[in-house]
Amino acid sequence: MAYFDHNATTPLSRAARAAWIEASEDAWQNPSGPYRAGARVRNRLEAGRERLGDFLACPGESLVFTSGATEGNNALFAWLARRAGPEDRVLLSAVEHPSVREAAMRWFPGRTEFIPVDRDGAVDPEAVRRELRRKRPGLVSVMAANNETGVVQPFETLAALCREAGVWFHCDAAQWIGKMPAARLEGCDFVTGSAHKFGGPKGVGFLRVPVSADDFQGQVGGEQEHRRRAGTENYPAIAAMVAALEEREVAGFADVDERIARRAAFESRLAEAVPGVRIAGTGKERLWNTVSIIVPRHRNHRWVMKLDREGFAVSTGSACSSGDEAPSPVLAAMGYGVEEARRAVRVSAGTETGEADWSGLGEAFARVWRTWEDRGTDSSLTEVVSI
Amino acid sequence: MAYFDHNATTPLSRAARAAWIEASEDAWQNPSGPYRAGARVRNRLEAGRERLGDFLACPGESLVFTSGATEGNNALFAWLARRAGPEDRVLLSAVEHPSVREAAMRWFPGRTEFIPVDRDGAVDPEAVRRELRRKRPGLVSVMAANNETGVVQPFETLAALCREAGVWFHCDAAQWIGKMPAARLEGCDFVTGSAHKFGGPKGVGFLRVPVSADDFQGQVGGEQEHRRRAGTENYPAIAAMVAALEEREVAGFADVDERIARRAAFESRLAEAVPGVRIAGTGKERLWNTVSIIVPRHRNHRWVMKLDREGFAVSTGSACSSGDEAPSPVLAAMGYGVEEARRAVRVSAGTETGEADWSGLGEAFARVWRTWEDRGTDSSLTEVVSI
Repeated sequence: MAYFDHNATTPLSRAARAAWIEASEDAWQNPSGPYRAGARVRNRLEAGRERLGDFLACPGESLVFTSGATEGNNALFAWLARRAGPEDRVLLSAVEHPSVREAAMRWFPGRTEFIPVDRDGAVDPEAVRRELRRKRPGLVSVMAANNETGVVQPFETLAALCREAGVWFHCDAAQWIGKMPAARLEGCDFVTGSAHKFGGPKGVGFLRVPVSADDFQGQVGGEQEHRRRAGTENYPAIAAMVAALEEREVAGFADVDERIARRAAFESRLAEAVPGVRIAGTGKERLWNTVSIIVPRHRNHRWVMKLDREGFAVSTGSACSSGDEAPSPVLAAMGYGVEEARRAVRVSAGTETGEADWSGLGEAFARVWRTWEDRGTDSSLTEVVSI
Repeated sequence: MAYFDHNATTPLSRAARAAWIEASEDAWQNPSGPYRAGARVRNRLEAGRERLGDFLACPGESLVFTSGATEGNNALFAWLARRAGPEDRVLLSAVEHPSVREAAMRWFPGRTEFIPVDRDGAVDPEAVRRELRRKRPGLVSVMAANNETGVVQPFETLAALCREAGVWFHCDAAQWIGKMPAARLEGCDFVTGSAHKFGGPKGVGFLRVPVSADDFQGQVGGEQEHRRRAGTENYPAIAAMVAALEEREVAGFADVDERIARRAAFESRLAEAVPGVRIAGTGKERLWNTVSIIVPRHRNHRWVMKLDREGFAVSTGSACSSGDEAPSPVLAAMGYGVEEARRAVRVSAGTETGEADWSGLGEAFARVWRTWEDRGTDSSLTEVVSI
């Protein structure tokens, strides 16, 4: 099975696995415990926080460990709403992950506004600049890279604009971290991430908070994380997360061009084999691993099923919530219609994905397409029957 | 090192470790993924939910997987507050864990009321009955067993009283599960638990919600857990949690009397070696593993440090927040003074704790006490110097 759904979750890296097992054996004690074994885990926990801070180009103390980006995004808007005035609004890109969009709308009902994206799914910094002048929002939230299309947002420019305007900037970097240098997030005030998107275990992530948010508090009921997030610290998972990111950052990102070339070869083969296929976001910088394919015919679920039988795990739109039959709001924001969005197949590679995997996937798309083409005009009938 | 802080966290059981490693290797894919590998993990996840439901004597579908009891307790009160009227209040025992107490007070400010406990730390069901008659609360929350004293609350009686009155009953069972039969929680509407309290990994737990709370929703931003808790399901940790509880439940609780006898021998030795020592909650049923000791002299931190040097890890009051220098609200609610609470040392055993550990701990208490006694009247001076 060739796995092409890394934007949903990644296999656990060997380094992360080893770190988790070691810490579970040797550093399982409560880091808040008043005895030496507790202090030893506490020291390791704080060293891990510093190390993560090194990669993210921020002070370790600005990092709060969480159960993942979804918790971080929820906690951020819940906290912001408690300290906000009744008129305060938040400004989001129209293509944010549901954990940002829904958290914002829960806590800022009627006061969550959206920045449109262009046909390629990118935010125009000028639009943000105009909004900042019009009426200062409490927070601007724009992701680093989109989970469905891989389109990279101008988050560094936006962070600088917001800093200049004295407005907090939040960046959901769940898809960026581990695929591109984390240090490029330096200028953001709030950053959320999830370990399992870059080879770490599930159930652990972090939220960066700025010094100016010194009253930040997520879940309550304990002194952990300097009272910013109650609950026994999950040190084994934190150690594994840091090990996973370390592996990515130390290996570096020099091979990104090579990876993009492999993907480009796949995209050419796809265009040749499946006439009328389109790829979303190609006019902008995209993560090296993601392709959002609008197939010319048949619902995406049928493609996913057939590709699965060919030995390739790919996804429909956002795999986070594939039970959801509503078409992707991301593609809608990019101007795609409902029927087009229902023909979106998402392919997302990982660091272990090689040239053979990509070329194999191209051939699989070609074979699947041919099975329908060979049946000629029956295909529409087949569709009705098999859906 | 003999570890006597199991109420804070437990070592990972071999069964849990094996389950986590196996699932991380073989079932790491996204359970919401639209391909067969995803469906396979989804099936395993749902089988785990059913198995957990078997132990808790509730339908699997009433269980929502969380990152731990702290998340569950926070999510419960946040959700309740969103649906509550502006006059609705919640009723808590005076000895709840901070994650219940602080979550209730955050979401029901000025509308969180407390049921007192007696000198032994137990709630009187009659007091709850009176409150239910006086003014119907939105929820009654009383823990199964106390984290500091081990005192067992009459939660089955309270659940029945609340059911009769048509009021939801929540039971924070973090300390009960794995030490006593989980099925005794059957009559509760809401139940919270954390795997790492019973040999499972950190960062995973569950919240039971009743059918009548069909709009329950914790963190948002995905369809996972039937929209009740967004975020990629942490199946490896869930598998490990179920394996850990299975081990406890299958072994059974027939040896509880024997465990209580071992603890009683320790308590006798302690009373003999340290004149004036008291144990909190002895007039009521207590978990077999916990002893809350009020030492006759010296701050608890000094005892903890000295016992640590003797090779025994014990804790002060609540180890969840030992950085907190405020004296325990649990002991205060039981009528102990501030100075007494500062002399509280908590000892909490685990399933692996044997007779030799208990008798060794008794001798260590005796030795520590003798070092002070031998110095006679200098001890008060020493205290000033070393604090």
